Amino acid sequence: MAFKRRKIAVIGSGFTGATAALMLAQKELGDIVLVDIPEQEKPTKGKALDMLQTSPIQKFDSKMTGTADYQDIQGADLVLITAGLPRKPGMSRDELVVTNANIMKQVSENIKEYAPESYIIVLSNPVDAMTYVCYQTTGFPKNRVIGQSGVLDTARFNTFVAEELNVSVEDISGFVLGGHGDEMVPLIRYSYAGGIPLDRILSAEKIESIVERTRKGGGEIVELLGKGSAYYAPAASMVQMAEAILKDKKRILPSIAYLEGEYGYENLYLGVPTIIGGNGIESVIELQLTDIEKNALDKSVKAVKNVMKML
Amino acid sequence: MAFKRRKIAVIGSGFTGATAALMLAQKELGDIVLVDIPEQEKPTKGKALDMLQTSPIQKFDSKMTGTADYQDIQGADLVLITAGLPRKPGMSRDELVVTNANIMKQVSENIKEYAPESYIIVLSNPVDAMTYVCYQTTGFPKNRVIGQSGVLDTARFNTFVAEELNVSVEDISGFVLGGHGDEMVPLIRYSYAGGIPLDRILSAEKIESIVERTRKGGGEIVELLGKGSAYYAPAASMVQMAEAILKDKKRILPSIAYLEGEYGYENLYLGVPTIIGGNGIESVIELQLTDIEKNALDKSVKAVKNVMKML
Amino acid sequence: MAFKRRKIAVIGSGFTGATAALMLAQKELGDIVLVDIPEQEKPTKGKALDMLQTSPIQKFDSKMTGTADYQDIQGADLVLITAGLPRKPGMSRDELVVTNANIMKQVSENIKEYAPESYIIVLSNPVDAMTYVCYQTTGFPKNRVIGQSGVLDTARFNTFVAEELNVSVEDISGFVLGGHGDEMVPLIRYSYAGGIPLDRILSAEKIESIVERTRKGGGEIVELLGKGSAYYAPAASMVQMAEAILKDKKRILPSIAYLEGEYGYENLYLGVPTIIGGNGIESVIELQLTDIEKNALDKSVKAVKNVMKML
Amino acid sequence: MAFKRRKIAVIGSGFTGATAALMLAQKELGDIVLVDIPEQEKPTKGKALDMLQTSPIQKFDSKMTGTADYQDIQGADLVLITAGLPRKPGMSRDELVVTNANIMKQVSENIKEYAPESYIIVLSNPVDAMTYVCYQTTGFPKNRVIGQSGVLDTARFNTFVAEELNVSVEDISGFVLGGHGDEMVPLIRYSYAGGIPLDRILSAEKIESIVERTRKGGGEIVELLGKGSAYYAPAASMVQMAEAILKDKKRILPSIAYLEGEYGYENLYLGVPTIIGGNGIESVIELQLTDIEKNALDKSVKAVKNVMKML
Repeated sequence: MAFKRRKIAVIGSGFTGATAALMLAQKELGDIVLVDIPEQEKPTKGKALDMLQTSPIQKFDSKMTGTADYQDIQGADLVLITAGLPRKPGMSRDELVVTNANIMKQVSENIKEYAPESYIIVLSNPVDAMTYVCYQTTGFPKNRVIGQSGVLDTARFNTFVAEELNVSVEDISGFVLGGHGDEMVPLIRYSYAGGIPLDRILSAEKIESIVERTRKGGGEIVELLGKGSAYYAPAASMVQMAEAILKDKKRILPSIAYLEGEYGYENLYLGVPTIIGGNGIESVIELQLTDIEKNALDKSVKAVKNVMKML
Repeated sequence: MAFKRRKIAVIGSGFTGATAALMLAQKELGDIVLVDIPEQEKPTKGKALDMLQTSPIQKFDSKMTGTADYQDIQGADLVLITAGLPRKPGMSRDELVVTNANIMKQVSENIKEYAPESYIIVLSNPVDAMTYVCYQTTGFPKNRVIGQSGVLDTARFNTFVAEELNVSVEDISGFVLGGHGDEMVPLIRYSYAGGIPLDRILSAEKIESIVERTRKGGGEIVELLGKGSAYYAPAASMVQMAEAILKDKKRILPSIAYLEGEYGYENLYLGVPTIIGGNGIESVIELQLTDIEKNALDKSVKAVKNVMKML
Repeated sequence: MAFKRRKIAVIGSGFTGATAALMLAQKELGDIVLVDIPEQEKPTKGKALDMLQTSPIQKFDSKMTGTADYQDIQGADLVLITAGLPRKPGMSRDELVVTNANIMKQVSENIKEYAPESYIIVLSNPVDAMTYVCYQTTGFPKNRVIGQSGVLDTARFNTFVAEELNVSVEDISGFVLGGHGDEMVPLIRYSYAGGIPLDRILSAEKIESIVERTRKGGGEIVELLGKGSAYYAPAASMVQMAEAILKDKKRILPSIAYLEGEYGYENLYLGVPTIIGGNGIESVIELQLTDIEKNALDKSVKAVKNVMKML
Repeated sequence: MAFKRRKIAVIGSGFTGATAALMLAQKELGDIVLVDIPEQEKPTKGKALDMLQTSPIQKFDSKMTGTADYQDIQGADLVLITAGLPRKPGMSRDELVVTNANIMKQVSENIKEYAPESYIIVLSNPVDAMTYVCYQTTGFPKNRVIGQSGVLDTARFNTFVAEELNVSVEDISGFVLGGHGDEMVPLIRYSYAGGIPLDRILSAEKIESIVERTRKGGGEIVELLGKGSAYYAPAASMVQMAEAILKDKKRILPSIAYLEGEYGYENLYLGVPTIIGGNGIESVIELQLTDIEKNALDKSVKAVKNVMKML
């Protein structure tokens, strides 16, 4: 038996996919295959080559390749899916969902064929629904199909709190449930600075304004960028989950997990606290919620279900 | 006396500037101010904010801000200049040089005003000439105005050799002099794999093809990307030089340095081996060259001078 | 102005001091001077040289030197004090305190003379009293003289909880006040796994047994080692505080801080939550305590005062 | 299939073994089992526990345990052997060899039984002979039984050169063949600073004195320490080899490899340049030697054979 590097496929070579590929390589988590559609084959190869050329400087050994041929993901251990269209002017939300679901189906079928043992992390939007589509299309067990939204929402929340308090980001610990962005259910009573509950050191107004800013966090960046959307923090979020899986770290992280009764829901993907390790989602942590929290989560679930009805 | 973080300004918030900013922050080298023109103010702020939101995940404490106001670089310790236009269709090389020289003058005047004690690393193209413009405009001592090209050329060369030999990038060590890309003068006799001279383990043809690919390395990526040019490896190259300065590492790195007689040239900026530490370019290392190498370097110098004549 | 590496002196070249020196260098926080008494000069030099020889492998640039001459710490930015005797068989606790206080006075006078602008982190036992002695002897402002105990107690607590829950150590966050070890006042209501209060996921008995094991954590290792005491985690604890200061991270960490009315105490050093940044202890965070917690803290203070009476 | 952490056994919990264990964990290369003889069981457990308690601070997830029971290494992927006695006063060199060979046999039999698929890195002295004993006793294929000496000799050499030139250790690259210490055969013509052959920038006298100091490098530290021998750099050396194997980095590193005709020798273990990757020693690199070098290597081989005759 010889030691082999893990093989990680990143589907979608846009800014998020490419940034995730770089971050995976910086951590030497494995060899990276960056995949995009045939029309993007050359730029995908270009980005992979440019990133590979940082390796002598940043001292990582990862093969990095770009491709439009799914055969190249053969035997991948882990797949990160960033593929999907952003909403374009004039496109209804429904049209977006249907379009991205079709993309997700194709991607998922290819993963099923070429990387049937892989673990999957989904970022494509709307992420709860897209993770579900991936789960259904691949037929993989639920622990191996995971969506990302809470790590990113928490990172934004923590950033704003650290800035407000002028303390290290390492010491802020927020907590979210439910959907992404607007549908996010923050649990302030489980949010801390240096272990101290935030409501002891920040006013209710300040907390509320940070929660609001977090909800709109993706939109704030879309509005600033003018075109496109955030990609650095989304990429870092996926990579944190990837690292937890590949290193079997058993991190307690919010994930979009398939629920079978947890929190009173079933047959849907929803953001909940989970343990992420070598088996992907190793367990869902069930918390007792207050009525207000439960109502907010119900609303979040309703929104997820509305999206799923379009499919 | 209190310990304060270094302040690093990155001029130009395009892909190279933004990627450099992220890599600086990942290494916790200081607080980052990303600067661009007023028309780009909002995207610049957007990128800085998105990057800042990776900090709770990647566990770095760096303030990251975007601005179009040079006052915000007040007191910067280090400035990375990535500003400048790429060549556009129909634009002559001469026009490009004049345009970018004007940009460089404005940037340099602002640095002179707001960060008069700073060290500068220039990446803007054509980099030998642009570094010279920066040197003249700021009036800073030569050790504090440094151009980047050889670190990148070497990284590309090392990547190709490591791939060819199927060994770790950590063990390949190439060596270049002179201008960037086409004007690069590779010193194969100072290039090794695990300390073994490359010409002992690779055929002359293979080495020549790797040299050629390195020379055209920027063009290869431009051609693949379709629009824009390489940014990951260029950013990593600048950051390696930045780290050597800020940590006073006294790295032996190829830099574009102001020559006053070294290698028989004076009053120009040229790629030569240098020691980079807390004083910027601490010394230029003079090597005895063969006639072939000296001729190639002369040619490289001629090309640099031709560009400078346009100014 | 040139960039210079920070200079860090580590007083005491025993296992803790040497391990701390290595960890400081691995993080490239500065050049290290390891100091011990004249009888230990040669072994101190030997350890420094051995550690220096790891630098080409671990790729850090730090000068590492060993000395018995305090002149060599001239101008140090930061000083870590690990000097002091362990309790020997037949030695009363009182004798130990007096002996170590004398050592601390000599060390402090040397620091005052040769590194009058430095920040100091004290580990020597009994640490509350020794930090006080250092504060008095140097006459340094209180923000620059800091004792370590809570980071270590928390690390032990977090280790035991992570092991019990079989989750990542990155997601456990304990909280302690007061003295070291037996005198430690754990705040379970501020202790979490992934943000979830521990008392929701661990039984009261289990928590109590972990608290007890933490209290006796130093003793457990002393008993296992047979001779000597713990040094890896104590060293890592000091280095975390050192990094927070040198990088101005503004971490929220438990420190032994000089109190002037906070928590109702004055003129003594006690373990409390603080913000540690470029100014050393930038502030003490005052929490509302329950009666039980306040009583335990009073007891802890009494113990500290009893030790100080011996001086 | 789930991702599991690698299991790494470190045999010998002395300073070298313990330091190696910490460095392995800092890199999150796997879970660590530290093994020693029954008389050392408690201190071994103590060290492992102390190191484990650094994990919440240094943010690594590695189980770290101490044991005297070889059953606990069951299924280990990689084994580092540091066991063996140092030479004691009055003990002849021959006695030492015989004693350590017996220790090595016992260790090797246990590895054969409990970790039959493992890769082994040997540090125990005299290392060429001890690696041979391990190879014979386990019956493992030659690529899986590797000795360490050249990485350490090179690290020492590089340290001295970097110090002499006042440049970064990252830019020095020495090269050694043959035995450890006195028997080391340095190849100065393959040794560089920033790619520049050392003999261009250092005088022959200076190089000779550095070579001599490197030869005696272990003795210099033994003499300084007064008791015991170097452990930081030896530990780092093993860990570099371990990382190359576990991450399949294909590093070009000097190893003690089993020769079957390479360099004209067979049926012995000798220090030669190798490629270290996921298959352990993936190949031996054969260099053309000068007569002087070949003679020195012959002398080195003779010394190795003399030691082996005692067995």
